Amino acid sequence: MSAPEKIIIDTDPGQDDAVAILLALASPELDVLGITAVAGNVPLSLTEKNARKVCELAGKTDTKVFAGAVRPLVRPLVTAEQVHGQTGLNGPDLPEPTMPLQTQHAVDFIVETLMSEESGTVTLCPLGPLTNVALAMIREPKIVSRIKRIVLMGGGFFEGGNTTPAAEFNIYVDPHAADVVFRSGVPIVVMPLDVTHKALTTGKRIAAFRELGTRVGIATAEMLEFFERFDEEKYGTEGGPLHDPCVIAYLLKPELFRGREVNVVVETASELTMGMTVVDWWGVSKRPKNALVLRDIDAGGFFALLVERLARL
Amino acid sequence: MSAPEKIIIDTDPGQDDAVAILLALASPELDVLGITAVAGNVPLSLTEKNARKVCELAGKTDTKVFAGAVRPLVRPLVTAEQVHGQTGLNGPDLPEPTMPLQTQHAVDFIVETLMSEESGTVTLCPLGPLTNVALAMIREPKIVSRIKRIVLMGGGFFEGGNTTPAAEFNIYVDPHAADVVFRSGVPIVVMPLDVTHKALTTGKRIAAFRELGTRVGIATAEMLEFFERFDEEKYGTEGGPLHDPCVIAYLLKPELFRGREVNVVVETASELTMGMTVVDWWGVSKRPKNALVLRDIDAGGFFALLVERLARL
Amino acid sequence: MSAPEKIIIDTDPGQDDAVAILLALASPELDVLGITAVAGNVPLSLTEKNARKVCELAGKTDTKVFAGAVRPLVRPLVTAEQVHGQTGLNGPDLPEPTMPLQTQHAVDFIVETLMSEESGTVTLCPLGPLTNVALAMIREPKIVSRIKRIVLMGGGFFEGGNTTPAAEFNIYVDPHAADVVFRSGVPIVVMPLDVTHKALTTGKRIAAFRELGTRVGIATAEMLEFFERFDEEKYGTEGGPLHDPCVIAYLLKPELFRGREVNVVVETASELTMGMTVVDWWGVSKRPKNALVLRDIDAGGFFALLVERLARL
Amino acid sequence: MSAPEKIIIDTDPGQDDAVAILLALASPELDVLGITAVAGNVPLSLTEKNARKVCELAGKTDTKVFAGAVRPLVRPLVTAEQVHGQTGLNGPDLPEPTMPLQTQHAVDFIVETLMSEESGTVTLCPLGPLTNVALAMIREPKIVSRIKRIVLMGGGFFEGGNTTPAAEFNIYVDPHAADVVFRSGVPIVVMPLDVTHKALTTGKRIAAFRELGTRVGIATAEMLEFFERFDEEKYGTEGGPLHDPCVIAYLLKPELFRGREVNVVVETASELTMGMTVVDWWGVSKRPKNALVLRDIDAGGFFALLVERLARL
Repeated sequence: MSAPEKIIIDTDPGQDDAVAILLALASPELDVLGITAVAGNVPLSLTEKNARKVCELAGKTDTKVFAGAVRPLVRPLVTAEQVHGQTGLNGPDLPEPTMPLQTQHAVDFIVETLMSEESGTVTLCPLGPLTNVALAMIREPKIVSRIKRIVLMGGGFFEGGNTTPAAEFNIYVDPHAADVVFRSGVPIVVMPLDVTHKALTTGKRIAAFRELGTRVGIATAEMLEFFERFDEEKYGTEGGPLHDPCVIAYLLKPELFRGREVNVVVETASELTMGMTVVDWWGVSKRPKNALVLRDIDAGGFFALLVERLARL
Repeated sequence: MSAPEKIIIDTDPGQDDAVAILLALASPELDVLGITAVAGNVPLSLTEKNARKVCELAGKTDTKVFAGAVRPLVRPLVTAEQVHGQTGLNGPDLPEPTMPLQTQHAVDFIVETLMSEESGTVTLCPLGPLTNVALAMIREPKIVSRIKRIVLMGGGFFEGGNTTPAAEFNIYVDPHAADVVFRSGVPIVVMPLDVTHKALTTGKRIAAFRELGTRVGIATAEMLEFFERFDEEKYGTEGGPLHDPCVIAYLLKPELFRGREVNVVVETASELTMGMTVVDWWGVSKRPKNALVLRDIDAGGFFALLVERLARL
Repeated sequence: MSAPEKIIIDTDPGQDDAVAILLALASPELDVLGITAVAGNVPLSLTEKNARKVCELAGKTDTKVFAGAVRPLVRPLVTAEQVHGQTGLNGPDLPEPTMPLQTQHAVDFIVETLMSEESGTVTLCPLGPLTNVALAMIREPKIVSRIKRIVLMGGGFFEGGNTTPAAEFNIYVDPHAADVVFRSGVPIVVMPLDVTHKALTTGKRIAAFRELGTRVGIATAEMLEFFERFDEEKYGTEGGPLHDPCVIAYLLKPELFRGREVNVVVETASELTMGMTVVDWWGVSKRPKNALVLRDIDAGGFFALLVERLARL
Repeated sequence: MSAPEKIIIDTDPGQDDAVAILLALASPELDVLGITAVAGNVPLSLTEKNARKVCELAGKTDTKVFAGAVRPLVRPLVTAEQVHGQTGLNGPDLPEPTMPLQTQHAVDFIVETLMSEESGTVTLCPLGPLTNVALAMIREPKIVSRIKRIVLMGGGFFEGGNTTPAAEFNIYVDPHAADVVFRSGVPIVVMPLDVTHKALTTGKRIAAFRELGTRVGIATAEMLEFFERFDEEKYGTEGGPLHDPCVIAYLLKPELFRGREVNVVVETASELTMGMTVVDWWGVSKRPKNALVLRDIDAGGFFALLVERLARL
């Protein structure tokens, strides 16, 4: 067996972030070098705490959790308590974490790790606004060529947006950071709404987590039941889209996903379409390809993977 | 039987425009007050001639054809010979038209008609860039409240664009005109790429036109065979989308289509997304509804209607 | 003596427009082919009437006055009653005009005149938003190469704007029309705020008009006394800027003005700077020169010319 | 005598930055806590070295110099070697510095200093792009309320720009950073081109530095002679504008300057006007005042101050 893939999870938990973290911590193919929190779904003071709560839920209290950016690069912070609840992790009753927050700033941790680990061996997994990643690139541009790849949840194209008609939440919150990342030249894999809206938390799928009978399984079921309510009402679907775990699932089983190498540019000029990920799916522009944008998922395989892995915790 | 619906077809033929014109001229439910040509798929000198060619093909040489805008309001004209061929009507060998072009300017005809016909009785059917319609609204704002409705082919949202990643051709060519129209307050029905890409000119469907054995049927088959080549190669589909006839079909059989009352804003600020029709399908903005945007079509019923009507010419 | 220069005055009177019209009608060097009214300082229904009032004040009741655009191309109309008063011509008590408004639309008159007069012999003098001129160019692009030149009042650069921090009123009201005109290729002379703010209606200068003792002189004094109040309070100057007559004065005595051939682009993308005339005075961009932008005026000579000419009416 | 004002000079030397640093280091009213370098006139590797060269020239080798941002927040770095020469400090032959660069990152130094010094006692003096200052505000928003004030060189309004027709170099290079700073709520004093173009390095003024006969005086004369060449040719003036020392002079003798409390917004949406500082000098917008924008300078007094102070080094 080859060495596990070294990853940094950059995240703003968020119930779906939490499940993504659980999936990563449960998977021996991945070596989670650190979890860096960012303001997004809820403010940073909550996201860094939620990240630690999830590590404790997973029983991985030696995981290093770092606090990063309190605000986006340029625009004021927008949060999404209407989706995630006031704590960002509403649903289960998770105890206050006792494991420590690392004292190093998340951005410094990202820079230091990328500069000290062998070049081309560390994957970044952003699950929230791209503020921390962009700040790391701004602080030390030399990291850009040392990143193995960025696999991120964000954007949407054929689905439209979920925050404005044209923009998905993660990119909308910090479009300038996203612009920095998409123009960096790092190989990027994008998990957009087009995929995640095909990974719905149906009753049967949630039941499978609960039936694990474990603390993790029950908490996951409770998180997803809370989380899906907003989108079920909005979209009239059974279940809500399970966004962030798709990123980790892609690292484990890329064959569950299908997509295309295309050009992606982030809109930062117009308020109307601010934060839109403009995907040139049909190659009508002459712009060079800079991302693998996924569009399809084997949702059954994805949920089976999730259940199988979470059972290990 | 009620009186036929009075319509003005504003068009830049274009093979699919031609089929739309044929469908309208073949349908007793519609009273085509005039056909107004605009620069779009090809320059105006060709679109006005093509409109007359199509009227002669239909044997309706008393149809009034008017020439309108040579160029968009603000931006330089972009044409699409790569799709439609150099004449705009490549495919069949149609004779030069002998019926006259009306001397009145298309914009003046639109204004005069709307001011003289009973208010609320005339429907506008734009099949190309919205330059003529916007110019009429600018010249005589009083027409706005007198238009029954505008049923237009243009835009795209879940499909993305066909000219840039975000913009469909008709809206991209004159986004400012589209902005004028969408902010006018007139009831608007939008037939976007999301519908027309579900109305593909498969071999079997084209054969049905040819099998009519008439001049009109054979010419239609020849037009569609030429027209589909570009999109078949681009999208890898069997057949190309048959855009413009959807507008006329909607007038005849609205039950073939399904959509939603939503807010639509046209992007005019950013070059990246210029001409995008930003559709608030999920109501995430607070903007008021200003259009019925169609998204689904009964393609079989649509092509059956086309064949049945074209058989009458 | 050479033949008089044929001009069309496009205008939205406005007291300063009125003085410009008086200056033109008093000057044998100019042949006023027509006066075309546009919405701007006040709505069109007032500007066309005001234009006729001024012709009657000048005793030139055979002047042809045409009504043009009711609204800008794309944006909603903004007016400036706070400057000009509710009628647009507050100050003197001018009678309702009895001379007729021409039935032809102003835009059609501009097109027809330019197509019928010898090419290169007609100068356009826009004193308001450029809507009519742009609409003429859109309706018949062939006029572009037939216009001798456009001498317009509009814009500002070193002075900033007077309507927003960056934009002058005429350009701000219809930035898209201005964009069409500045990109047309016609030779353009720009009389911006940078000039007109050096042509102040001081007490002494207004007195000189009154001392003419004529109806025209007294009405002019009354108009300017009303007109200057707004800007005197705003800028704390003695007298207000006398904008529009500078255009006509330039035709009569260009030696009163100094400027530079530069590139000018009109901002239409950003709401913050919408309608700004971006003047590349120092040639820092590579954009080609498209306008003579004036910056200095011999204000004494200008007012002397005005008094001398208005004395003839 | 009161305690000296604590300042951090954020800078991208640059000959005029160098003179500003010399002025600060020569002035007992100021306590230079540190000098933070940023990429701007030349890349960071040169600006941090140049800052140390200047400290050594001043004989102040205990000054702490920190390296900061290598690149702007969002846009690619633009430099100005055509003005400053390849080293950024062309003119005198200054030796390679031997004093050390601090190991702490400039942004961290700014944050730490503001959080540890008494709140409201530290003034920031940015002389280059605002990247470091914005990054500090992003990293630790709590510093915002602790900054006494920001006195910066940047922008231009009545002068237009010097890099594009509308934008001054410092703001143009990082408009997003400038936007963050101008919207922060910190009291800001702006020293724009409108002031600095009235502070010209005439032959007589440069001679006064040389006549000091000191190393500092002669090097200053040599720097200014190199520096002025670009602008002398561009503007046709005798001498070039001496930008950055105005910031330090304002701290020492604010009575040399006159300006107005106004609203300033930085353009970040439109490429045409990108980085323009839109100054609402006449209060035509309803936007709240957020900066004291200076417009006039007693240039004689300014140069006299410079000579008197540099004589002390």
